[in-house]
Amino acid sequence: MEEGPAVELLEDGKVVRVRLPSGSARYHALWLRDNALDPQTRDSGNGQRLISVCDLPSNIHMSAAAVEGDEIALTFQPEGKVLHFPLSWLERHCYDSTATRKLLPNHVESWDNSLDPPEADFEVVSSNPAALQAWLADIRRYGLARLTNGPVEEGALLGVVDLFGFVRETNYGKLFEVRTEVNPVNLAYTGLGLSAHTDNPYRDPVPTLQILYCLENSADGGDSIVVDGFRAVESLRQESETAFQLLAGHCARFEYAGGSGVHLQSKRPLIELLPDGELAGVRFNNRSAAPPTDIPFDEMEAWYAAYRQFGEIINDPSMAVSFKLQPGESFIIDNTRVLHARTGYSGSGSRWLQGCYADKDGLNSTLAALENRPREAAE
Amino acid sequence: MEEGPAVELLEDGKVVRVRLPSGSARYHALWLRDNALDPQTRDSGNGQRLISVCDLPSNIHMSAAAVEGDEIALTFQPEGKVLHFPLSWLERHCYDSTATRKLLPNHVESWDNSLDPPEADFEVVSSNPAALQAWLADIRRYGLARLTNGPVEEGALLGVVDLFGFVRETNYGKLFEVRTEVNPVNLAYTGLGLSAHTDNPYRDPVPTLQILYCLENSADGGDSIVVDGFRAVESLRQESETAFQLLAGHCARFEYAGGSGVHLQSKRPLIELLPDGELAGVRFNNRSAAPPTDIPFDEMEAWYAAYRQFGEIINDPSMAVSFKLQPGESFIIDNTRVLHARTGYSGSGSRWLQGCYADKDGLNSTLAALENRPREAAE
Repeated sequence: MEEGPAVELLEDGKVVRVRLPSGSARYHALWLRDNALDPQTRDSGNGQRLISVCDLPSNIHMSAAAVEGDEIALTFQPEGKVLHFPLSWLERHCYDSTATRKLLPNHVESWDNSLDPPEADFEVVSSNPAALQAWLADIRRYGLARLTNGPVEEGALLGVVDLFGFVRETNYGKLFEVRTEVNPVNLAYTGLGLSAHTDNPYRDPVPTLQILYCLENSADGGDSIVVDGFRAVESLRQESETAFQLLAGHCARFEYAGGSGVHLQSKRPLIELLPDGELAGVRFNNRSAAPPTDIPFDEMEAWYAAYRQFGEIINDPSMAVSFKLQPGESFIIDNTRVLHARTGYSGSGSRWLQGCYADKDGLNSTLAALENRPREAAE
Repeated sequence: MEEGPAVELLEDGKVVRVRLPSGSARYHALWLRDNALDPQTRDSGNGQRLISVCDLPSNIHMSAAAVEGDEIALTFQPEGKVLHFPLSWLERHCYDSTATRKLLPNHVESWDNSLDPPEADFEVVSSNPAALQAWLADIRRYGLARLTNGPVEEGALLGVVDLFGFVRETNYGKLFEVRTEVNPVNLAYTGLGLSAHTDNPYRDPVPTLQILYCLENSADGGDSIVVDGFRAVESLRQESETAFQLLAGHCARFEYAGGSGVHLQSKRPLIELLPDGELAGVRFNNRSAAPPTDIPFDEMEAWYAAYRQFGEIINDPSMAVSFKLQPGESFIIDNTRVLHARTGYSGSGSRWLQGCYADKDGLNSTLAALENRPREAAE
């Protein structure tokens, strides 16, 4: 069992140590004051902060601390203000730990070709919030989910986006037709096979979600293939920390100028990390990779070797989950993580998909709201 | 004048040195082969690459090099393939330099309250491509431009977005009403003054552009204020490299759960840098800053001091450009760079703005396409 008092002021009241179920944790007076939960600090209706860090006295400290039931009560000086913090809230917002840095974000699990892709029924997720929540949680976890039993009609994929968020319209339209065209502005609009890629890396911000929805698929071939880019990053790092650091530590360039009045360009690393080393995203697309010019001459050869190594991991059959969409079926991917590909197609049949983009903010928001909904509503 | 041969193979043909107008530059065989411009490497219609780095031989090298007019001709082995590269293209894609790293991206100029905000006339930019190009270039340079003489009618701001791109729809709608409401889901929908902030930092991706369009503004107060976040970062770094590194090196947290079914959360640094140290964006919003939990205990006090210092720079009157919008006037800001604020308002008059979000990809693409258009079209 944890020793020591339930709550204790340290460093002349600039820090408080609190005994919590998981162990003791320290909090700074300034941090506590800035993040206080009282209605003068946070609007009780919409939860927004009403004060600014600049308004707080720089000599802030605590003069008294006590446990009151499930809360602690702290007296802040020089304001002379008493503020209450629930122990559960303190536990949830603890920053006094020596946890090691993780590559994968919370809620994320990486996968290879042993994954049985998560799947849901369009009718069910449209009418049952618990089923919708489970399907959205799968997308957050795997960056991928299938949806079956949707209507076989043009524009039906917009109804998929309506389940959780909003379409990101681009120069390709609100939605785009993925089928063979004469004089295609993009190689996606041909019968060619496409190697695994993320979409639109030449766009900043990239669309963070993509939906591909099948209306016809009687051609020979045209299978869909998905690859977990986060697993590819894990593998690359296992094979070579140096290669991983090279791709995370230098920007690549991407460019697309295939349509009239369109000239998209970006400068971003193939592997994007947050400052704490957490994976924020992957960009990979041989078709739209522009000449990289931000890597110093002396590192270019090693960078290219790392790029090739990353590509070989991505293209390895052990990474690829494949399936052939039937009319009314679709899949959604996290376009900052999961790469997609297709086999070439030809023959007498036809292949017609519709695609559209959306963003993860809406998906994660809808999922979080479903997870936080009152129990009666959940049942 | 530059000495040496016009073109010379080095390191057994793994590198070529080329004499260019600006000096000599080296290029790797693998880099050149991957970025070749011939129609077997790049689709001549849409410019997309048809090969993958994984397809290229790893022992690639050049066996012959010669200048042919404005191009160099290089023979690649083991393919035995001759490829041509214009000298101007090589110059433009040079990566053999020791240029120092810059904080500000290309085309960007930072500003303080001495800026006279760039401005254009809605009718003119709607009909004159050169005027549109100049206005878009101002937005790229300053992250800010005003637009006058627009129609005083609801939804007119969507016509501003039509000039260059696409609306980013969110839980706030395609557009949102900025006026006093009863039980506001967001403090923006009150008469309160708002301190300088970027919008929606709790969203990932954040909307990269915002338009605020005035329909009524007869209230006392309600002035618009804009602050260059990039200049604030420059100032912070000048005052304290340590403070700059703390804010760039740790993630903050943002959260918004003010509306029904909405719960947005993000984890990003206040100052976002590319791996080469170039500024990618700024997030700053006291209202939606959640308790920061990704900063180690031992650095939290210093991080908070840096946060306060950054806030004091942002709030300094020497940084603030202010103006009062009249009906039919609007302004657009780069929401990853320029903070906006407003003074409180009250009195017998009314204030009604409409706002919407869009993204920089469309704006930069339209601008690049205008800049690259044939001269006759430009005149």
